[in-house]
Amino acid sequence: MKKLIIVFTLFPFLLAAQNEDSVFIRKIANEILVNGKAFENLHYLTKKIGGRLAGSPQMPKAEKWSAATMQQSGADTVYMQECMVPHWVRGGTDKAEIVSVDNKKQKRTLDVLALGNSLGSGKTGVTADVLAVSDFDELEKRKEEVKGKIVFYNYPFNPTYIVPGKAYGESGIYRYTGASRAAKYGAVGIVIRSLTEATNNNPHTGAMRYNDSFPKIPAAALGLMDADYLWQTCKDHKSVKLSLYTSGYFLPDTIGHNVIGELKGSDASKDFITIGGHLDSWDVNEGAHDDGTGIVQTMEVLRVLKTLGYKSKKTIRFVLFANEENGTRGGQKYAEEAKAKNENHVFALESDEGGFTPRGFSFSINDEKLKKVKAWKNLLEPYGATEFAHGDGGTDIGPLNKNLNTPVTSFLPDNQRYFDLHHSRGDVFEAVNKRELLLGAINIAALIYLVDKYGL
Amino acid sequence: MKKLIIVFTLFPFLLAAQNEDSVFIRKIANEILVNGKAFENLHYLTKKIGGRLAGSPQMPKAEKWSAATMQQSGADTVYMQECMVPHWVRGGTDKAEIVSVDNKKQKRTLDVLALGNSLGSGKTGVTADVLAVSDFDELEKRKEEVKGKIVFYNYPFNPTYIVPGKAYGESGIYRYTGASRAAKYGAVGIVIRSLTEATNNNPHTGAMRYNDSFPKIPAAALGLMDADYLWQTCKDHKSVKLSLYTSGYFLPDTIGHNVIGELKGSDASKDFITIGGHLDSWDVNEGAHDDGTGIVQTMEVLRVLKTLGYKSKKTIRFVLFANEENGTRGGQKYAEEAKAKNENHVFALESDEGGFTPRGFSFSINDEKLKKVKAWKNLLEPYGATEFAHGDGGTDIGPLNKNLNTPVTSFLPDNQRYFDLHHSRGDVFEAVNKRELLLGAINIAALIYLVDKYGL
Repeated sequence: MKKLIIVFTLFPFLLAAQNEDSVFIRKIANEILVNGKAFENLHYLTKKIGGRLAGSPQMPKAEKWSAATMQQSGADTVYMQECMVPHWVRGGTDKAEIVSVDNKKQKRTLDVLALGNSLGSGKTGVTADVLAVSDFDELEKRKEEVKGKIVFYNYPFNPTYIVPGKAYGESGIYRYTGASRAAKYGAVGIVIRSLTEATNNNPHTGAMRYNDSFPKIPAAALGLMDADYLWQTCKDHKSVKLSLYTSGYFLPDTIGHNVIGELKGSDASKDFITIGGHLDSWDVNEGAHDDGTGIVQTMEVLRVLKTLGYKSKKTIRFVLFANEENGTRGGQKYAEEAKAKNENHVFALESDEGGFTPRGFSFSINDEKLKKVKAWKNLLEPYGATEFAHGDGGTDIGPLNKNLNTPVTSFLPDNQRYFDLHHSRGDVFEAVNKRELLLGAINIAALIYLVDKYGL
Repeated sequence: MKKLIIVFTLFPFLLAAQNEDSVFIRKIANEILVNGKAFENLHYLTKKIGGRLAGSPQMPKAEKWSAATMQQSGADTVYMQECMVPHWVRGGTDKAEIVSVDNKKQKRTLDVLALGNSLGSGKTGVTADVLAVSDFDELEKRKEEVKGKIVFYNYPFNPTYIVPGKAYGESGIYRYTGASRAAKYGAVGIVIRSLTEATNNNPHTGAMRYNDSFPKIPAAALGLMDADYLWQTCKDHKSVKLSLYTSGYFLPDTIGHNVIGELKGSDASKDFITIGGHLDSWDVNEGAHDDGTGIVQTMEVLRVLKTLGYKSKKTIRFVLFANEENGTRGGQKYAEEAKAKNENHVFALESDEGGFTPRGFSFSINDEKLKKVKAWKNLLEPYGATEFAHGDGGTDIGPLNKNLNTPVTSFLPDNQRYFDLHHSRGDVFEAVNKRELLLGAINIAALIYLVDKYGL
């Protein structure tokens, strides 16, 4: 009988708590939907500052603006956490041209972008026959043919995966390692099929990395229509000669910053909760969905908690990470400092999959904690988050998870459109919908509130 | 013990059936994601035919094209079901201008669209002082002031509703009945705040209806920025004079058609399943999300079932309804004929909330049937449909539900962006994302397959 009594005693209490939470989350939602600043902040970040790669002139502008905005949003304190960041420069307009087909002169320009971190071709470019391969298996089979060629990886972004991130994971290895794997056999350059299923011809850049054992050859991504054209031309003819001009280079590492706002906790425990996105972006667009939306959602959560007078138990850190795109130095630095200061990080949340309608959260936590989170599902469902599952927790908070064993989660929007825009010219303010962006902020704020109140 | 034995005996069978279904639905998904024609068909419908209001020259073009496309998609038979449709014509470029403020001349143009079915102002327009009201309550309180004025309803599209359709339902009454409610007290025209929360200034048209007891005054919708400007100007000044020019008129009813494709069922029962959208659209845009996407999804379901060689038990009707926007004559005609022929309609599904990522279905069915549908949830969830709830079943299949008691459902996409575009210049092909559109078609096809196979 005892158990039953406890249940009956607790039930009204639990119901009242759930009701109080549902009322507070409704307040969060109303405040964000009526007075939200995320969309206007995104407009400033994308249109007045623009693309903001680590080391670029836009980087310090974005840091300064975002620190001031968090101060205005009511942070108890705002500060910069210094970290050295790589300084890669595109250095010019990337260009590719089919110059001959079966030794007959041609002049067909292909839309390309050099891959981030790749080194330039030199002013004269590289001109060579194209070896078109479907994947690494074909490259290995035909390794004798690679020497002196430009290798073209036409690996597709699998359209049958319902979660587009799965296709990105599979294709990404060609962008990241393709150059050195071809250079190993004597290739003089590579071009890849862009990591997208978009219906336009925009090329998509993104980080690559050289293996120091092999020559550092130029590497670029082709738009899909041009990739299809080049593929078909290679299939139809014996030799296709391509000229590739890229100008990437590295300057010495420079000083960047994680921009950190704090709401001080009332709890004696001195625990920390982190919420963030990354402030840097690629140089070829406005970094709207990647990750301007994560930045302005982070600021919006700060603003709404402060505006509603919420007194957090734990100290909540709003962290705008430096250099996610081509170094992840900001995320590493943040975890290093946390560890060095022996801080107790009880939870971290990242928004870096675009500012689309919320679908849920992907947790890197144990089963017991996931069960606890799932008990809050009915509180978030009315605002769109219905998926609560184990999964990847996010790049910038990965080191917290790895080195401090912090439970982490990644906000999951409905990102079917994400890879149409990601790392391409298309990732601009106009591609973001205000309501979708704000709904994301609501669900993030609600989860932070629940974790702060009840722990995890 | 008997029950247990039954459970154990049935379990492997049920598991095998679910597995067979999951394999077939995966085939549907792959076929649509790899070879889907919906996006290309939408391009033709929006760009080659364009807006296609009942009675317009585009109407028969759309009918002819869609009949041919369903034939090519493998329909056993395609035919036209004749119905008389209203023939409203916009008749010219709508215009509104603030001509004086506190008797001082001004010349500020406001972006307006006449409401569908409204009658024109005549060439000289109507020029009158504006009476700006928040809602019908204020109109009633100030009814003595209405005579000779242009009433401006500034009723907001409530941003705090998470389901935007709820705001549309609330605000819609101002568009539909606002003119006659103001004319009753002597108003000479009305303008309304557009039914949207968009961040641009596009006005949104849509159907209105006059009450024959009162003068049929001109009626138009204002873009949101202009609505805010007019509202503030009215608050700040004693008199604001507006000139409104609209040119709408009716021609006699004309002949339109429901375009119907069929896949014949093998079942002796001669039951029918209907799936459809509406072929007509407003005249000011390309009718992309409203309801081009519903049309091409309907065609895509036909194509995929035929391509995969699926032999349906019931006869599946693919119905492209006429005249949803300003008359709903097509939907009425379809139900009338079904009743007259004593057809047994066991299920109907409509896609008319935009071609966005699927979230689920809204069913107008009894609890027992809903329970049966919910048992299929695990089969659809991997493709995005997770919500299965009681709700509105859709406009064009409403008469089937009402008059033949047919269980009906409306496909529910994630329509947070819908009312930004709906009935405005923005509803064009470019606003549709290919993957989102195709994922909708997959979920619709899967549900149709399950209902056909297991009944409802």
